[in-house]
Amino acid sequence: MNTALAIAPDEHIDSIDLLPPESVIEALQRIRPHTHVTPLVGSNLLNEWLGHEVVFKAEGFQRIGAFKIRGALNALLALKEKNELPAEVVAFSSGNHAQAVALAASMLGIKATVIMPEFVSKVKQQATRSYGAELILTKTRQEAEELAAKFKAEGKYFLHPSADNHVIAGQGTTCYEALQDGITADAIFAACGGGGLLSGTWLAAQLLKPKAKIFGAEPLIANDAAESYRAGKIMAFADTPMTIADGARTLHVSELTFQYLKKLDGFYEVPEDRIIYWTQWLQHLLKITVEPTSAMAMAAAFEWLKTQKTRQHVLVILSGGNVGAAAHRQIWEKDYLDQPPKL
Amino acid sequence: MNTALAIAPDEHIDSIDLLPPESVIEALQRIRPHTHVTPLVGSNLLNEWLGHEVVFKAEGFQRIGAFKIRGALNALLALKEKNELPAEVVAFSSGNHAQAVALAASMLGIKATVIMPEFVSKVKQQATRSYGAELILTKTRQEAEELAAKFKAEGKYFLHPSADNHVIAGQGTTCYEALQDGITADAIFAACGGGGLLSGTWLAAQLLKPKAKIFGAEPLIANDAAESYRAGKIMAFADTPMTIADGARTLHVSELTFQYLKKLDGFYEVPEDRIIYWTQWLQHLLKITVEPTSAMAMAAAFEWLKTQKTRQHVLVILSGGNVGAAAHRQIWEKDYLDQPPKL
Repeated sequence: MNTALAIAPDEHIDSIDLLPPESVIEALQRIRPHTHVTPLVGSNLLNEWLGHEVVFKAEGFQRIGAFKIRGALNALLALKEKNELPAEVVAFSSGNHAQAVALAASMLGIKATVIMPEFVSKVKQQATRSYGAELILTKTRQEAEELAAKFKAEGKYFLHPSADNHVIAGQGTTCYEALQDGITADAIFAACGGGGLLSGTWLAAQLLKPKAKIFGAEPLIANDAAESYRAGKIMAFADTPMTIADGARTLHVSELTFQYLKKLDGFYEVPEDRIIYWTQWLQHLLKITVEPTSAMAMAAAFEWLKTQKTRQHVLVILSGGNVGAAAHRQIWEKDYLDQPPKL
Repeated sequence: MNTALAIAPDEHIDSIDLLPPESVIEALQRIRPHTHVTPLVGSNLLNEWLGHEVVFKAEGFQRIGAFKIRGALNALLALKEKNELPAEVVAFSSGNHAQAVALAASMLGIKATVIMPEFVSKVKQQATRSYGAELILTKTRQEAEELAAKFKAEGKYFLHPSADNHVIAGQGTTCYEALQDGITADAIFAACGGGGLLSGTWLAAQLLKPKAKIFGAEPLIANDAAESYRAGKIMAFADTPMTIADGARTLHVSELTFQYLKKLDGFYEVPEDRIIYWTQWLQHLLKITVEPTSAMAMAAAFEWLKTQKTRQHVLVILSGGNVGAAAHRQIWEKDYLDQPPKL
């Protein structure tokens, strides 16, 4: 495994036009009949301990158990509006994007083909199949990418998990929905994988809370976005960093999302033990299943709150709740519940 | 450890008057300003797999993370109404009743003293203390019981976790709230520890769904209530059966709750691996933290549904969501998520 960072190969585009923030409103109008309005949750005890107020947007309760359905649906529904819906959509994913494309395609009555490395957990394979997608398992991640490229070259419609304007606008509806509920948000935190959620979050905030600070959370051992943010150019891993935050194992962000990520107020790079610590504590305090990737956003919020002298209101986007048995085992190996998160 | 069953020593009272079902409505009026109306949740995928409809009442979202606050609050508020609120309330508990008494007492501005064997997890000790209770830790369960008896003899107000009319009426508000939402319920399932929840559930059903069948769920290795139900007299364990369903480790039900338990439609005795199986699957499908004790009720519902020829509507009461790190580890030791619960 090569976990060194290098400049990403295709980093040659100086500027890509950002979407008008209103794209997020359009996206919400498109997807709302087909998605859940997920709840905002919180913990009085946590707020007491912190001396601040944290509100969580619980996307684990979204269809497929994660926000990813928002972007996939928005992309396909937008194609349908223009009478350009393809007969088949292809995706490459080892995570929630697979299930999102599978469900969105099935809702629109088209075929989904999902390419997945065979090391992906059986429960994720099974969920993707249960939504009606054809699953192509490859031995390695590289083989999967080659196959995806081949399909693209053949003219098949390929839906990228983050480097797509409609996907970005769709993911932005998560934050937009939360802010629509009228909450105060001095700062907003979300995890960074490919950067789609953070890009959409930035757009949504421009509409309803333009003064809110927006921070990304990344695993310290998979900190390509944070390094890219510092370097001003996209840095990439040669091989997948095996962080517990499996939604953040992407090798690098895209040129499209990087245009948004540059505008954020910063990144927090979270050590693995802190990701696990917050996965345990959020599950304990909120009584919901939280992916380590999502809990990482709270770990970042905690670091930021440490630096604040006055009472702050924070929105933390919990991106999903899909956790396999092996990850659960890893999460509960050590016991952090005797170390309350007090500030 | 002596896990043999024998006739409970004090089983000499032939009949105790049952409460009028309206006690549950009174209880709800008392406690509603101080408790959460917990959500009803479900899984389309599960319903598809089963060919039946299962609705879950999610008491993990209740204050203290379990239904127990309902009974404790109802008892103390009823005393307050009669101007008989004591200056101190004593409880003996290794579980959610401890936190319930601690919080209820703190809400009413009185002292709570909770006796607990020291083997209880630190997170539960800490939670009980965080609500302001004084915690007395004893080496053994027996020592704890002796101390509780001593306090009672000294005239201190002792709140039993189930053998108390107000506690029973309070626990009944869980089912009453669910049925008030207008759901169909051909059958209702709840776990059996001391029997308070099931007693209250029976009362609530008489008011709103008198024809619904009501079943108790018990661990096969801690099946004192099921054995008592069959024998027509209370059977007791000499020592705590160490089931993963820690809310059902009670040695025996009480004379008071047994009057209600006799009226149920039956008990399901659930093997440990099925309790764990459903804990995993409910956490996976519902994305909420479910105690093994609660998941056991779904295991029972599954067995009953197997015997049904027509589409049934079932209410499963998920009693709580307090799970320590060690229990989480035990739950996820094996992976059952590749065996979907299909009928």
